Amino acid sequence: MKKNNRIGALVDELTNNPCRLYDSKHFCEKFGIAKSSLSEDIKLVNEVFVENGTGHIESSSGVGGGIRYVPGISEEGIRKLQDKLIDKLEDPSRLLGGGFLYTSDLMYDGKLVDGMARVFCQKFHSLGADYVVTVETKGIPLAARTATLLNLPLVIIRRESMYSEGSTVSINYFSGSSDRIQKMSIAKRAVSQGAKAIVIDDFMRGGGSLKGVVEILGEFDIEVLASGIAIVSSEPAKKRVQNYTPIIYIDEIDEENRRIAARSNETL
Amino acid sequence: MKKNNRIGALVDELTNNPCRLYDSKHFCEKFGIAKSSLSEDIKLVNEVFVENGTGHIESSSGVGGGIRYVPGISEEGIRKLQDKLIDKLEDPSRLLGGGFLYTSDLMYDGKLVDGMARVFCQKFHSLGADYVVTVETKGIPLAARTATLLNLPLVIIRRESMYSEGSTVSINYFSGSSDRIQKMSIAKRAVSQGAKAIVIDDFMRGGGSLKGVVEILGEFDIEVLASGIAIVSSEPAKKRVQNYTPIIYIDEIDEENRRIAARSNETL
Repeated sequence: MKKNNRIGALVDELTNNPCRLYDSKHFCEKFGIAKSSLSEDIKLVNEVFVENGTGHIESSSGVGGGIRYVPGISEEGIRKLQDKLIDKLEDPSRLLGGGFLYTSDLMYDGKLVDGMARVFCQKFHSLGADYVVTVETKGIPLAARTATLLNLPLVIIRRESMYSEGSTVSINYFSGSSDRIQKMSIAKRAVSQGAKAIVIDDFMRGGGSLKGVVEILGEFDIEVLASGIAIVSSEPAKKRVQNYTPIIYIDEIDEENRRIAARSNETL
Repeated sequence: MKKNNRIGALVDELTNNPCRLYDSKHFCEKFGIAKSSLSEDIKLVNEVFVENGTGHIESSSGVGGGIRYVPGISEEGIRKLQDKLIDKLEDPSRLLGGGFLYTSDLMYDGKLVDGMARVFCQKFHSLGADYVVTVETKGIPLAARTATLLNLPLVIIRRESMYSEGSTVSINYFSGSSDRIQKMSIAKRAVSQGAKAIVIDDFMRGGGSLKGVVEILGEFDIEVLASGIAIVSSEPAKKRVQNYTPIIYIDEIDEENRRIAARSNETL
Protein backbone atom coordinates (compact mmCIF):
# COMPACT_ATOMS: atom_id res chain seq x y z
CA MET A 1 0.00 0.00 0.00
CA LYS A 2 1.32 3.44 -0.93
CA LYS A 3 2.10 6.00 1.73
CA ASN A 4 -0.76 8.27 0.60
CA ASN A 5 -3.28 5.48 1.00
CA ARG A 6 -1.79 4.45 4.33
CA ILE A 7 -2.16 7.96 5.71
CA GLY A 8 -5.76 8.09 4.56
CA ALA A 9 -6.51 4.64 5.97
CA LEU A 10 -4.87 5.52 9.31
CA VAL A 11 -6.88 8.73 9.72
CA ASP A 12 -10.09 6.88 8.78
CA GLU A 13 -9.49 4.02 11.22
CA LEU A 14 -8.39 6.25 14.10
CA THR A 15 -11.26 8.74 13.77
CA ASN A 16 -13.72 5.82 13.68
CA ASN A 17 -12.18 4.31 16.83
CA PRO A 18 -11.52 7.21 19.18
CA CYS A 19 -9.55 6.50 22.36
CA ARG A 20 -9.03 2.88 21.35
CA LEU A 21 -5.52 1.70 22.26
CA TYR A 22 -3.82 0.03 19.29
CA ASP A 23 -0.77 -2.16 19.62
CA SER A 24 1.61 -0.85 16.93
CA LYS A 25 1.79 -4.40 15.53
CA HIS A 26 -1.84 -3.95 14.42
CA PHE A 27 -0.93 -1.37 11.79
CA CYS A 28 2.50 -2.84 10.92
CA GLU A 29 0.77 -6.09 9.99
CA LYS A 30 -2.20 -4.44 8.32
CA PHE A 31 0.01 -2.30 6.07
CA GLY A 32 3.00 -4.68 5.84
CA ILE A 33 5.46 -2.03 7.00
CA ALA A 34 8.27 -1.82 9.55
CA LYS A 35 7.80 -0.11 12.90
CA SER A 36 10.04 2.78 11.81
CA SER A 37 7.79 3.54 8.82
CA LEU A 38 4.72 3.36 11.03
CA SER A 39 6.32 5.85 13.44
CA GLU A 40 6.81 8.28 10.56
CA ASP A 41 3.20 7.79 9.43
CA ILE A 42 1.87 8.30 12.95
CA LYS A 43 3.93 11.48 13.33
CA LEU A 44 2.41 12.84 10.12
CA VAL A 45 -1.14 11.83 11.09
CA ASN A 46 -0.70 13.48 14.48
CA GLU A 47 0.32 16.69 12.65
CA VAL A 48 -2.86 16.45 10.58
CA PHE A 49 -5.06 16.18 13.69
CA VAL A 50 -3.25 19.02 15.47
CA GLU A 51 -3.34 21.21 12.35
CA ASN A 52 -7.08 20.51 11.83
CA GLY A 53 -7.80 21.10 15.53
CA THR A 54 -9.45 17.69 15.88
CA GLY A 55 -7.26 16.09 18.54
CA HIS A 56 -3.91 14.34 18.84
CA ILE A 57 -2.29 10.91 19.01
CA GLU A 58 -0.91 9.60 22.28
CA SER A 59 1.99 7.15 21.97
CA SER A 60 3.31 5.04 24.78
CA SER A 61 6.05 2.42 24.53
CA GLY A 62 6.71 -0.80 26.41
CA VAL A 63 4.33 -3.53 27.57
CA GLY A 64 0.70 -2.43 27.31
CA GLY A 65 1.78 0.53 25.23
CA GLY A 66 0.63 1.56 21.79
CA ILE A 67 -1.08 4.45 20.09
CA ARG A 68 -4.50 6.01 20.51
CA TYR A 69 -6.29 8.92 18.94
CA VAL A 70 -7.71 11.34 21.49
CA PRO A 71 -10.38 13.55 19.87
CA GLY A 72 -10.16 17.20 20.79
CA ILE A 73 -10.89 20.71 19.69
CA SER A 74 -8.64 23.74 19.23
CA GLU A 75 -8.92 26.92 21.30
CA GLU A 76 -10.29 28.64 18.23
CA GLY A 77 -12.77 25.79 17.77
CA ILE A 78 -13.99 26.17 21.36
CA ARG A 79 -14.40 29.93 20.95
CA LYS A 80 -16.37 29.51 17.71
CA LEU A 81 -18.55 26.81 19.29
CA GLN A 82 -19.28 29.00 22.32
CA ASP A 83 -20.02 32.05 20.15
CA LYS A 84 -22.45 30.03 18.08
CA LEU A 85 -24.19 28.64 21.17
CA ILE A 86 -24.43 32.09 22.76
CA ASP A 87 -25.77 33.61 19.57
CA LYS A 88 -28.46 30.95 19.34
CA LEU A 89 -29.29 31.00 23.07
CA GLU A 90 -29.79 34.77 23.14
CA ASP A 91 -32.56 34.57 20.52
CA PRO A 92 -35.65 35.84 22.44
CA SER A 93 -37.94 33.46 20.54
CA ARG A 94 -36.55 30.74 22.86
CA LEU A 95 -38.35 32.24 25.87
CA LEU A 96 -40.98 29.84 27.18
CA GLY A 97 -41.97 31.70 30.37
CA GLY A 98 -41.21 30.70 33.94
CA GLY A 99 -37.50 31.12 33.31
CA PHE A 100 -37.40 28.28 30.76
CA LEU A 101 -35.71 28.39 27.37
CA TYR A 102 -36.31 26.09 24.42
CA THR A 103 -32.96 24.37 23.78
CA SER A 104 -33.87 20.99 22.26
CA ASP A 105 -32.75 22.02 18.77
CA LEU A 106 -29.25 22.78 20.12
CA MET A 107 -29.03 19.54 22.10
CA TYR A 108 -30.16 17.51 19.06
CA ASP A 109 -27.83 19.21 16.54
CA GLY A 110 -25.08 16.75 15.58
CA LYS A 111 -22.39 19.36 14.86
CA LEU A 112 -22.94 21.33 18.08
CA VAL A 113 -23.13 18.12 20.10
CA ASP A 114 -19.91 16.83 18.54
CA GLY A 115 -18.12 20.09 19.38
CA MET A 116 -19.24 20.00 23.02
CA ALA A 117 -18.38 16.29 23.29
CA ARG A 118 -14.88 17.07 21.99
CA VAL A 119 -14.43 19.65 24.73
CA PHE A 120 -15.39 17.08 27.38
CA CYS A 121 -13.28 14.34 25.78
CA GLN A 122 -10.24 16.62 25.71
CA LYS A 123 -10.74 17.57 29.35
CA PHE A 124 -11.68 14.20 30.83
CA HIS A 125 -9.88 11.57 28.73
CA SER A 126 -7.07 10.92 31.20
CA LEU A 127 -9.24 10.59 34.34
CA GLY A 128 -9.61 6.81 34.04
CA ALA A 129 -13.42 6.68 34.03
CA ASP A 130 -15.37 3.47 33.40
CA TYR A 131 -18.68 5.01 32.29
CA VAL A 132 -20.32 8.12 30.96
CA VAL A 133 -23.60 8.64 32.82
CA THR A 134 -26.56 10.89 32.05
CA VAL A 135 -30.19 11.28 33.10
CA GLU A 136 -32.80 11.06 30.36
CA THR A 137 -33.71 12.78 28.04
CA LYS A 138 -32.26 15.94 26.59
CA GLY A 139 -28.61 15.28 27.45
CA ILE A 140 -28.55 11.79 25.88
CA PRO A 141 -27.14 12.74 22.45
CA LEU A 142 -24.33 14.74 24.10
CA ALA A 143 -23.59 12.00 26.63
CA ALA A 144 -23.69 9.31 23.91
CA ARG A 145 -21.26 11.25 21.72
CA THR A 146 -18.94 11.93 24.67
CA ALA A 147 -19.00 8.23 25.59
CA THR A 148 -18.16 7.23 22.02
CA LEU A 149 -15.26 9.71 21.84
CA LEU A 150 -13.95 8.42 25.19
CA ASN A 151 -14.52 4.79 24.12
CA LEU A 152 -16.64 4.20 27.24
CA PRO A 153 -20.05 2.60 27.74
CA LEU A 154 -22.98 4.96 28.22
CA VAL A 155 -25.31 4.58 31.20
CA ILE A 156 -28.72 6.26 31.12
CA ILE A 157 -30.52 6.91 34.39
CA ARG A 158 -34.27 6.70 33.85
CA ARG A 159 -36.99 8.82 35.42
CA GLU A 160 -39.13 5.75 35.99
CA SER A 161 -37.98 2.20 36.59
CA MET A 162 -38.82 0.32 33.40
CA TYR A 163 -39.55 -3.38 33.22
CA SER A 164 -37.08 -3.74 30.34
CA GLU A 165 -34.27 -2.52 32.60
CA GLY A 166 -34.56 -5.56 34.88
CA SER A 167 -33.78 -5.06 38.55
CA THR A 168 -33.22 -1.39 39.42
CA VAL A 169 -32.15 0.90 42.25
CA SER A 170 -34.20 4.09 42.66
CA ILE A 171 -33.91 7.28 44.69
CA ASN A 172 -36.03 10.36 45.22
CA TYR A 173 -34.40 13.77 44.99
CA PHE A 174 -35.45 17.40 45.16
CA SER A 175 -35.49 19.20 41.83
CA GLY A 176 -35.28 22.96 42.29
CA SER A 177 -36.24 23.61 38.64
CA SER A 178 -39.55 21.83 38.97
CA ASP A 179 -39.84 22.60 42.69
CA ARG A 180 -40.77 19.05 43.60
CA ILE A 181 -39.55 15.60 44.54
CA GLN A 182 -38.55 13.54 41.51
CA LYS A 183 -37.42 9.98 41.05
CA MET A 184 -34.46 8.46 39.26
CA SER A 185 -33.73 4.84 38.62
CA ILE A 186 -30.73 2.87 37.39
CA ALA A 187 -30.51 -0.72 36.12
CA LYS A 188 -28.41 -2.83 38.49
CA ARG A 189 -26.73 -4.61 35.62
CA ALA A 190 -25.76 -1.35 33.90
CA VAL A 191 -22.94 -0.62 36.37
CA SER A 192 -20.30 -2.35 38.51
CA GLN A 193 -19.67 -1.77 42.18
CA GLY A 194 -16.77 0.63 42.84
CA ALA A 195 -16.46 1.93 39.28
CA LYS A 196 -15.72 5.54 38.27
CA ALA A 197 -17.99 7.76 36.21
CA ILE A 198 -18.12 11.00 34.25
CA VAL A 199 -21.55 12.65 34.28
CA ILE A 200 -22.80 14.59 31.26
CA ASP A 201 -25.99 16.66 31.16
CA ASP A 202 -27.59 19.37 29.07
CA PHE A 203 -28.52 21.86 31.78
CA MET A 204 -27.99 22.70 35.43
CA ARG A 205 -29.67 25.30 37.61
CA GLY A 206 -29.32 24.50 41.33
CA GLY A 207 -27.61 21.15 40.83
CA GLY A 208 -30.37 19.05 42.45
CA SER A 209 -30.47 16.61 39.56
CA LEU A 210 -26.68 16.23 39.47
CA LYS A 211 -26.65 15.72 43.24
CA GLY A 212 -29.24 12.98 42.72
CA VAL A 213 -26.97 11.33 40.15
CA VAL A 214 -24.03 11.42 42.58
CA GLU A 215 -26.28 9.89 45.24
CA ILE A 216 -27.71 7.08 43.10
CA LEU A 217 -24.23 6.20 41.83
CA GLY A 218 -23.08 6.24 45.45
CA GLU A 219 -25.45 3.31 46.05
CA PHE A 220 -22.98 1.32 43.92
CA ASP A 221 -19.90 2.99 45.47
CA ILE A 222 -19.34 4.67 42.11
CA GLU A 223 -17.25 7.82 42.29
CA VAL A 224 -18.09 10.77 40.03
CA LEU A 225 -14.76 12.04 38.69
CA ALA A 226 -16.10 15.00 36.72
CA SER A 227 -19.29 16.48 35.28
CA GLY A 228 -19.67 18.20 31.95
CA ILE A 229 -22.78 20.36 31.54
CA ALA A 230 -23.66 22.12 28.29
CA ILE A 231 -25.48 25.08 29.86
CA VAL A 232 -25.30 26.23 33.49
CA SER A 233 -27.48 28.96 34.95
CA SER A 234 -25.42 31.48 36.97
CA GLU A 235 -28.33 31.69 39.42
CA PRO A 236 -28.46 30.42 42.11
CA ALA A 237 -24.76 31.04 42.70
CA LYS A 238 -24.73 28.38 45.40
CA LYS A 239 -25.10 24.95 43.76
CA ARG A 240 -25.80 21.65 45.48
CA VAL A 241 -22.67 20.20 43.86
CA GLN A 242 -19.09 21.27 43.19
CA ASN A 243 -16.83 20.11 40.40
CA TYR A 244 -18.77 20.72 37.19
CA THR A 245 -17.58 22.01 33.83
CA PRO A 246 -20.01 24.17 31.82
CA ILE A 247 -19.59 25.11 28.16
CA ILE A 248 -21.89 28.15 28.48
CA TYR A 249 -23.34 30.15 31.38
CA ILE A 250 -26.72 31.82 31.26
CA ASP A 251 -26.54 34.96 33.39
CA GLU A 252 -29.97 36.39 32.91
CA ILE A 253 -33.38 35.59 31.49
CA ASP A 254 -35.36 38.83 31.48
CA GLU A 255 -38.83 37.93 30.25
CA GLU A 256 -40.25 41.42 30.54
CA ASN A 257 -37.64 42.93 28.23
CA ARG A 258 -37.28 39.68 26.25
CA ARG A 259 -33.55 39.59 26.85
CA ILE A 260 -31.31 36.56 27.47
CA ALA A 261 -27.68 37.03 28.49
CA ALA A 262 -25.28 34.11 27.98
CA ARG A 263 -21.50 33.95 28.21
CA SER A 264 -18.65 31.51 27.65
CA ASN A 265 -16.88 29.47 30.27
CA GLU A 266 -13.44 30.98 29.72
CA THR A 267 -11.58 28.29 31.64
CA LEU A 268 -12.01 25.38 29.22
CA MET B 1 0.81 21.38 1.94
CA LYS B 2 2.23 18.02 0.86
CA LYS B 3 0.01 15.42 -0.75
CA ASN B 4 0.32 13.08 2.27
CA ASN B 5 -0.92 15.76 4.62
CA ARG B 6 -3.68 16.77 2.23
CA ILE B 7 -4.98 13.20 2.08
CA GLY B 8 -4.96 12.96 5.87
CA ALA B 9 -6.65 16.34 6.24
CA LEU B 10 -9.31 15.44 3.66
CA VAL B 11 -10.18 12.14 5.37
CA ASP B 12 -10.31 13.90 8.76
CA GLU B 13 -12.56 16.71 7.54
CA LEU B 14 -14.90 14.45 5.57
CA THR B 15 -15.35 11.86 8.35
CA ASN B 16 -16.10 14.68 10.80
CA ASN B 17 -18.70 16.16 8.43
CA PRO B 18 -20.63 13.22 7.03
CA CYS B 19 -23.10 13.93 4.21
CA ARG B 20 -22.11 17.59 4.12
CA LEU B 21 -21.98 18.87 0.55
CA TYR B 22 -18.71 20.69 -0.15
CA ASP B 23 -18.20 22.97 -3.09
CA SER B 24 -14.87 21.83 -4.59
CA LYS B 25 -13.63 25.44 -4.25
CA HIS B 26 -13.61 24.88 -0.46
CA PHE B 27 -10.75 22.39 -0.63
CA CYS B 28 -8.94 24.01 -3.60
CA GLU B 29 -8.69 27.23 -1.59
CA LYS B 30 -7.92 25.51 1.69
CA PHE B 31 -5.05 23.51 0.19
CA GLY B 32 -4.01 26.00 -2.51
CA ILE B 33 -4.31 23.43 -5.29
CA ALA B 34 -5.90 23.24 -8.73
CA LYS B 35 -9.18 21.44 -9.36
CA SER B 36 -7.37 18.66 -11.22
CA SER B 37 -5.15 17.89 -8.20
CA LEU B 38 -8.17 17.90 -5.92
CA SER B 39 -9.91 15.42 -8.24
CA GLU B 40 -6.93 13.07 -7.91
CA ASP B 41 -6.95 13.46 -4.13
CA ILE B 42 -10.68 12.81 -3.93
CA LYS B 43 -10.31 9.71 -6.09
CA LEU B 44 -7.65 8.37 -3.71
CA VAL B 45 -9.68 9.23 -0.60
CA ASN B 46 -12.72 7.50 -2.08
CA GLU B 47 -10.56 4.38 -2.59
CA VAL B 48 -9.53 4.55 1.07
CA PHE B 49 -13.16 4.66 2.26
CA VAL B 50 -14.20 1.83 -0.08
CA GLU B 51 -11.16 -0.27 0.88
CA ASN B 52 -11.81 0.31 4.62
CA GLY B 53 -15.53 -0.40 4.19
CA THR B 54 -16.47 2.93 5.75
CA GLY B 55 -18.42 4.54 2.91
CA HIS B 56 -17.79 6.41 -0.32
CA ILE B 57 -17.60 9.88 -1.84
CA GLU B 58 -20.35 11.17 -4.09
CA SER B 59 -19.30 13.73 -6.67
CA SER B 60 -21.67 15.82 -8.73
CA SER B 61 -20.73 18.54 -11.18
CA GLY B 62 -22.47 21.72 -12.28
CA VAL B 63 -24.37 24.34 -10.29
CA GLY B 64 -25.16 23.11 -6.76
CA GLY B 65 -22.70 20.25 -7.25
CA GLY B 66 -19.73 19.27 -5.19
CA ILE B 67 -18.52 16.37 -3.13
CA ARG B 68 -19.86 14.68 -0.05
CA TYR B 69 -18.79 11.73 2.06
CA VAL B 70 -21.55 9.18 2.59
CA PRO B 71 -20.72 6.92 5.56
CA GLY B 72 -21.40 3.27 4.97
CA ILE B 73 -20.42 -0.24 5.90
CA SER B 74 -19.19 -3.16 3.79
CA GLU B 75 -21.13 -6.41 3.35
CA GLU B 76 -18.55 -8.10 5.54
CA GLY B 77 -18.94 -5.33 8.12
CA ILE B 78 -22.72 -5.85 8.20
CA ARG B 79 -22.30 -9.61 8.62
CA LYS B 80 -19.81 -9.18 11.48
CA LEU B 81 -22.08 -6.61 13.15
CA GLN B 82 -25.09 -8.90 12.87
CA ASP B 83 -23.13 -11.92 14.14
CA LYS B 84 -21.96 -9.93 17.14
CA LEU B 85 -25.47 -8.70 17.91
CA ILE B 86 -26.94 -12.21 17.58
CA ASP B 87 -24.22 -13.67 19.76
CA LYS B 88 -24.90 -11.11 22.47
CA LEU B 89 -28.70 -11.29 22.15
CA GLU B 90 -28.77 -15.09 22.51
CA ASP B 91 -27.10 -14.93 25.94
CA PRO B 92 -29.79 -16.34 28.30
CA SER B 93 -28.75 -13.99 31.11
CA ARG B 94 -30.67 -11.30 29.15
CA LEU B 95 -34.01 -12.96 29.93
CA LEU B 96 -36.13 -10.70 32.12
CA GLY B 97 -39.37 -12.68 32.06
CA GLY B 98 -42.60 -11.76 30.30
CA GLY B 99 -40.88 -12.01 26.93
CA PHE B 100 -38.55 -9.11 27.68
CA LEU B 101 -34.81 -9.05 27.08
CA TYR B 102 -32.27 -6.69 28.60
CA THR B 103 -30.72 -4.84 25.64
CA SER B 104 -29.68 -1.45 27.05
CA ASP B 105 -25.98 -2.35 26.99
CA LEU B 106 -26.21 -3.01 23.23
CA MET B 107 -28.16 0.17 22.52
CA TYR B 108 -25.66 2.24 24.57
CA ASP B 109 -22.51 0.71 23.04
CA GLY B 110 -20.87 3.30 20.79
CA LYS B 111 -19.28 0.82 18.35
CA LEU B 112 -22.44 -1.26 17.85
CA VAL B 113 -24.55 1.87 17.52
CA ASP B 114 -22.15 3.33 14.96
CA GLY B 115 -22.29 0.11 12.91
CA MET B 116 -26.10 0.07 12.90
CA ALA B 117 -26.25 3.79 12.10
CA ARG B 118 -23.94 3.18 9.12
CA VAL B 119 -26.33 0.54 7.80
CA PHE B 120 -29.23 3.00 8.01
CA CYS B 121 -27.18 5.86 6.55
CA GLN B 122 -26.14 3.71 3.59
CA LYS B 123 -29.71 2.63 2.96
CA PHE B 124 -31.54 5.92 3.51
CA HIS B 125 -29.09 8.68 2.51
CA SER B 126 -30.63 9.37 -0.89
CA LEU B 127 -34.28 9.53 0.23
CA GLY B 128 -34.24 13.28 0.79
CA ALA B 129 -35.37 13.28 4.43
CA ASP B 130 -35.48 16.43 6.55
CA TYR B 131 -35.36 14.79 10.01
CA VAL B 132 -34.46 11.66 11.88
CA VAL B 133 -37.18 10.96 14.44
CA THR B 134 -37.25 8.62 17.43
CA VAL B 135 -39.31 8.07 20.58
CA GLU B 136 -37.49 8.27 23.88
CA THR B 137 -35.48 6.57 25.40
CA LYS B 138 -33.51 3.51 24.37
CA GLY B 139 -33.28 4.29 20.65
CA ILE B 140 -31.91 7.82 21.14
CA PRO B 141 -28.18 7.02 20.80
CA LEU B 142 -28.84 5.08 17.57
CA ALA B 143 -31.15 7.79 16.19
CA ALA B 144 -28.68 10.53 17.16
CA ARG B 145 -25.79 8.75 15.43
CA THR B 146 -27.90 8.09 12.32
CA ALA B 147 -28.94 11.75 12.23
CA THR B 148 -25.32 12.88 12.52
CA LEU B 149 -24.19 10.53 9.73
CA LEU B 150 -27.04 11.77 7.51
CA ASN B 151 -26.33 15.40 8.47
CA LEU B 152 -29.95 15.82 9.58
CA PRO B 153 -31.50 17.27 12.74
CA LEU B 154 -32.75 14.79 15.32
CA VAL B 155 -36.30 15.00 16.67
CA ILE B 156 -37.16 13.19 19.91
CA ILE B 157 -40.78 12.38 20.63
CA ARG B 158 -41.40 12.46 24.39
CA ARG B 159 -43.63 10.20 26.45
CA GLU B 160 -44.90 13.18 28.41
CA SER B 161 -45.26 16.75 27.24
CA MET B 162 -42.55 18.69 29.06
CA TYR B 163 -42.76 22.37 29.92
CA SER B 164 -39.28 22.89 28.41
CA GLU B 165 -40.56 21.73 25.01
CA GLY B 166 -42.94 24.67 24.69
CA SER B 167 -46.20 24.10 22.85
CA THR B 168 -46.72 20.42 21.94
CA VAL B 169 -49.01 18.10 20.02
CA SER B 170 -49.89 14.82 21.76
CA ILE B 171 -51.61 11.61 20.79
CA ASN B 172 -52.63 8.41 22.58
CA TYR B 173 -51.79 5.09 20.99
CA PHE B 174 -52.11 1.42 21.83
CA SER B 175 -48.87 -0.28 22.81
CA GLY B 176 -49.08 -4.03 22.38
CA SER B 177 -45.86 -4.61 24.35
CA SER B 178 -47.21 -2.98 27.48
CA ASP B 179 -50.83 -3.88 26.60
CA ARG B 180 -52.12 -0.39 27.34
CA ILE B 181 -52.78 3.07 25.97
CA GLN B 182 -49.69 5.26 26.00
CA LYS B 183 -49.06 8.86 25.15
CA MET B 184 -46.54 10.54 22.90
CA SER B 185 -45.85 14.21 22.49
CA ILE B 186 -43.87 16.33 20.05
CA ALA B 187 -42.74 19.93 20.32
CA LYS B 188 -44.44 22.08 17.68
CA ARG B 189 -41.28 24.00 16.99
CA ALA B 190 -39.22 20.83 16.47
CA VAL B 191 -40.72 20.14 13.03
CA SER B 192 -42.04 21.91 9.94
CA GLN B 193 -45.33 21.25 8.20
CA GLY B 194 -45.01 18.95 5.17
CA ALA B 195 -41.47 17.75 5.90
CA LYS B 196 -40.15 14.21 5.40
CA ALA B 197 -38.78 11.95 8.11
CA ILE B 198 -36.82 8.78 8.72
CA VAL B 199 -37.82 7.00 11.95
CA ILE B 200 -35.23 5.09 13.97
CA ASP B 201 -36.00 2.92 17.00
CA ASP B 202 -34.37 0.20 19.08
CA PHE B 203 -37.14 -2.40 19.08
CA MET B 204 -40.43 -3.32 17.46
CA ARG B 205 -42.91 -6.04 18.35
CA GLY B 206 -46.36 -5.34 16.92
CA GLY B 207 -45.51 -1.90 15.54
CA GLY B 208 -47.95 0.04 17.74
CA SER B 209 -45.33 2.55 18.77
CA LEU B 210 -44.14 3.08 15.20
CA LYS B 211 -47.75 3.48 14.06
CA GLY B 212 -48.11 6.14 16.77
CA VAL B 213 -45.07 7.94 15.40
CA VAL B 214 -46.51 7.89 11.87
CA GLU B 215 -49.76 9.25 13.26
CA ILE B 216 -48.27 12.08 15.35
CA LEU B 217 -46.05 13.12 12.44
CA GLY B 218 -49.17 13.03 10.26
CA GLU B 219 -50.55 15.83 12.44
CA PHE B 220 -47.86 17.99 10.77
CA ASP B 221 -48.36 16.40 7.32
CA ILE B 222 -44.94 14.83 7.73
CA GLU B 223 -44.37 11.77 5.60
CA VAL B 224 -42.35 8.84 6.99
CA LEU B 225 -40.04 7.74 4.17
CA ALA B 226 -38.44 4.78 5.95
CA SER B 227 -37.96 3.23 9.39
CA GLY B 228 -34.82 1.59 10.69
CA ILE B 229 -35.27 -0.67 13.71
CA ALA B 230 -32.37 -2.37 15.48
CA ILE B 231 -34.28 -5.45 16.66
CA VAL B 232 -37.64 -6.68 15.38
CA SER B 233 -39.58 -9.54 16.95
CA SER B 234 -40.81 -12.03 14.31
CA GLU B 235 -44.00 -12.41 16.34
CA PRO B 236 -46.63 -11.23 15.72
CA ALA B 237 -46.08 -11.72 11.97
CA LYS B 238 -48.74 -9.13 11.23
CA LYS B 239 -47.43 -5.68 12.18
CA ARG B 240 -49.41 -2.46 12.41
CA VAL B 241 -46.99 -0.84 9.95
CA GLN B 242 -45.24 -1.76 6.70
CA ASN B 243 -41.96 -0.44 5.40
CA TYR B 244 -39.45 -1.03 8.19
CA THR B 245 -35.84 -2.20 8.03
CA PRO B 246 -34.56 -4.38 10.88
CA ILE B 247 -30.92 -5.21 11.55
CA ILE B 248 -31.78 -8.34 13.55
CA TYR B 249 -34.89 -10.46 14.02
CA ILE B 250 -35.73 -12.26 17.25
CA ASP B 251 -37.59 -15.45 16.34
CA GLU B 252 -38.08 -17.00 19.75
CA ILE B 253 -37.77 -16.26 23.44
CA ASP B 254 -38.20 -19.58 25.25
CA GLU B 255 -38.10 -18.76 28.94
CA GLU B 256 -38.65 -22.31 30.12
CA ASN B 257 -35.61 -23.65 28.29
CA ARG B 258 -33.76 -20.34 28.62
CA ARG B 259 -33.24 -20.12 24.88
CA ILE B 260 -33.29 -17.05 22.63
CA ALA B 261 -33.16 -17.41 18.85
CA ALA B 262 -32.08 -14.40 16.78
CA ARG B 263 -31.17 -14.10 13.10
CA SER B 264 -29.90 -11.54 10.63
CA ASN B 265 -31.95 -9.51 8.21
CA GLU B 266 -30.33 -10.87 5.05
CA THR B 267 -31.74 -8.18 2.78
CA LEU B 268 -29.68 -5.21 3.99
